[in-house]
Amino acid sequence: MEEEEVILLDYWPSPFGSIARIALAEKGTNYIHKLEDLSSKSPLLLEMNPVHAKVPVLVHKGKPICESDIIIQYIDEVWKNNFSLLPSDPYQRAKARFLVDFINKKVHESSVKIWMGANEEQEKGKEELIEWSKILEEELGDKLYFGGDVFGFVDITLVPFYNWFIVFKTIANFYIIETECPKLVMWGGRCLNRHSVSKSLPTKDQVYQAYLEFKKGWTHGQ
Amino acid sequence: MEEEEVILLDYWPSPFGSIARIALAEKGTNYIHKLEDLSSKSPLLLEMNPVHAKVPVLVHKGKPICESDIIIQYIDEVWKNNFSLLPSDPYQRAKARFLVDFINKKVHESSVKIWMGANEEQEKGKEELIEWSKILEEELGDKLYFGGDVFGFVDITLVPFYNWFIVFKTIANFYIIETECPKLVMWGGRCLNRHSVSKSLPTKDQVYQAYLEFKKGWTHGQ
Repeated sequence: MEEEEVILLDYWPSPFGSIARIALAEKGTNYIHKLEDLSSKSPLLLEMNPVHAKVPVLVHKGKPICESDIIIQYIDEVWKNNFSLLPSDPYQRAKARFLVDFINKKVHESSVKIWMGANEEQEKGKEELIEWSKILEEELGDKLYFGGDVFGFVDITLVPFYNWFIVFKTIANFYIIETECPKLVMWGGRCLNRHSVSKSLPTKDQVYQAYLEFKKGWTHGQ
Repeated sequence: MEEEEVILLDYWPSPFGSIARIALAEKGTNYIHKLEDLSSKSPLLLEMNPVHAKVPVLVHKGKPICESDIIIQYIDEVWKNNFSLLPSDPYQRAKARFLVDFINKKVHESSVKIWMGANEEQEKGKEELIEWSKILEEELGDKLYFGGDVFGFVDITLVPFYNWFIVFKTIANFYIIETECPKLVMWGGRCLNRHSVSKSLPTKDQVYQAYLEFKKGWTHGQ
């Protein structure tokens, strides 16, 4: 392993993997992209993340950084490039960290219910996701991005889930966000047009294919 | 509310509340301590943490900071006092953040199984907690504290749970940590002797009383 080598252990449909990819793209950091087969994890992944054995893992100078929110902050602290993905004001930083935690917990959990659940569980996921989207709509307000004029920590974390929302229209008739959260939909459009985002996210069709494959796997596994 | 006023909305048996108390004590920050009755949460708590309605909440200049790990980082960034609770090196910061996340998820979840569970669930909690303790023992190694010579982020997060481990001896015969993790036990003794810690944590008897009251409440609630 080279001294300065940067490796991302990743799984392309993973929103958490997408988060790491977008942060690296924003900072213009070159890296070796190693895609994992989650049904047969590589020895490197098991060595680098023995506690959780999960992607993404950023390996820099041979040392692992795990968990997408921690990876973004690490990238921001190491590759400064004269701009920061986090606000400089301590209160705004705390608020950004809170929203990132909220997305990783609440938005993720409800999205998984829509993704994996049937009937009542899927409906429950949709109801929750509307509730969380309204909170995010209010937090966003009339700003361009969650941190103000600059794309950053919260946007990077939310946009891979927002990319799922689009596919939720097909798989769960999840349209309500358009009428309930127009600002969030505008924000989503702005983010998806950003080069760092579009090159890092799976397409709508790829997400849908991943959904079909997951469904097949779960049905077989049950 | 005064311009610079610092208020901690807290619940004394909460390990997450203890974390905020220790961080404030380390930085010598004066604050108004408002204890919550969790069966009848105050309007201020519901206003300051509408998303989760949970303690602790640090209210500074009228604005809320929620989640114990975010509170520690906020305290560290606002009241610098010429020392930091987090390491300065980005990789060491990432590692500290990873361990804090691990403690708040894994150690907390397994502790709750011991605290609330009966028979098999409690045994499962004990097995898991030994596994997590061994990981922490290895991370600690021969250092005085998790960050090296200086008490900081990871120590503040772990010691309120370690304080529970002591009570787990009484309620669940949880003695194995003494033989399996001698370095962690030495670390625990060092931390508990620290003034910022001893004045912020409930005593063993108080934790035990809280356990008995919780048990009574759960039995009634079921």
